Amino acid sequence: MAVLTVFPIEGIGEITPGTDLAAAIGDAIDSSPGELMDGDVLAVTHKIVSKAEGRIVELENDGPDSHRHLVEQEAKSIIRRRDSLVIAETRHGFVCANAGVDRSNAGPARAILLPIDPDRSANRIRLRLAERFGVVIAVIVTDTFGRAWRRGLTDVAIGVAGMAAIDDLRGQTDDFGKVLEVTEVATADEIAAAADLVIGKASRNPVAVLRGVAWTPATTGVAPLIRPPGEDLFR
Amino acid sequence: MAVLTVFPIEGIGEITPGTDLAAAIGDAIDSSPGELMDGDVLAVTHKIVSKAEGRIVELENDGPDSHRHLVEQEAKSIIRRRDSLVIAETRHGFVCANAGVDRSNAGPARAILLPIDPDRSANRIRLRLAERFGVVIAVIVTDTFGRAWRRGLTDVAIGVAGMAAIDDLRGQTDDFGKVLEVTEVATADEIAAAADLVIGKASRNPVAVLRGVAWTPATTGVAPLIRPPGEDLFR
Repeated sequence: MAVLTVFPIEGIGEITPGTDLAAAIGDAIDSSPGELMDGDVLAVTHKIVSKAEGRIVELENDGPDSHRHLVEQEAKSIIRRRDSLVIAETRHGFVCANAGVDRSNAGPARAILLPIDPDRSANRIRLRLAERFGVVIAVIVTDTFGRAWRRGLTDVAIGVAGMAAIDDLRGQTDDFGKVLEVTEVATADEIAAAADLVIGKASRNPVAVLRGVAWTPATTGVAPLIRPPGEDLFR
Repeated sequence: MAVLTVFPIEGIGEITPGTDLAAAIGDAIDSSPGELMDGDVLAVTHKIVSKAEGRIVELENDGPDSHRHLVEQEAKSIIRRRDSLVIAETRHGFVCANAGVDRSNAGPARAILLPIDPDRSANRIRLRLAERFGVVIAVIVTDTFGRAWRRGLTDVAIGVAGMAAIDDLRGQTDDFGKVLEVTEVATADEIAAAADLVIGKASRNPVAVLRGVAWTPATTGVAPLIRPPGEDLFR
């Protein structure tokens, strides 16, 4: 029976610009009762990645103008705007609120930006932990995005290392031998969502381990999840 | 430590119009090594709900015209159309491909429609299993939806019983005591995504149990997840 377990890595502590994040996560794993195993997926919330990489901006003040200015700087294009809500495309190609600029967990008059290259961030953690613990793992970096037609937010993958972000089921058949219509499962996004169920928004546990996910080795990063603008019916 | 476990309920067997679905799920649980516990969430893929409720349509043929006609019948409004892709709003208020009409797992020249009232379907299962096993549980009914700006599909909740579909974290603070900006977590959708990681699209296990999710009792169903058209920037 396929059983999935998801548990947080506790005791990672405060991450600041220059922290060796892979070492901090590795030390926390070393102090945990469990250990990392072959096939595990590590989900890391992007905030600690961004902090370790120095992607923190001091705002002139805590008011909306400073924030808006920063969002416009970070955006590649603005998709929609209403009142204080800005839906923007980031340089990575993500479409999300505020171009990923976040003022939670940053400290007063500060904002956290997305990592420059979240795939690279994920891969760095993957390689270091694989070496340290002698395991084959995948790593995803997550953020919290809204959806066009559904209220509430879910975590999604913004960086992917070691695994295919999307699993293509083409060729697989249903119970009647008919080829499946639903062919592309966003596995990395489903992993991010599952991880958020144990991480939580106010949690001090920014990393979770998922054990029992069937993932496909790949080096394609997050790109398969990004819908090219030409294919996009909603911008 | 908060640990989440997700496992499939095996041995549910073929569901046909008129099957007592709650009894079928209960029997499968009875034959499983594990048992249902207080606080569990049961995720049920809508296809078996639709089948049990007779929401199966015989198409005139397996061609695209029959299918298109059915999609137009099921849609409350068409949001976008390109080639064979139709994004429509269903009568429930969901925005999804083909108004939820699905030809996988239906058999030749057949299609499966969404349940008429997925909240009610979920609640019926919840009440029956709660009584049979003497446990307090939540039940969600899931479907597989695409996203406007991300490729690949994820499972989401289309029916919710016993729990709040969205958890509002307003008032909770981050590590610096600042009130969280991200306040509304779509818990039911994250549960659906996590369940799909063990259910899979080609699986014969259409039900999963999630143990260790922190959910809030509620009777509001799926409604909190539906963005009202007036708030929607993308239609």
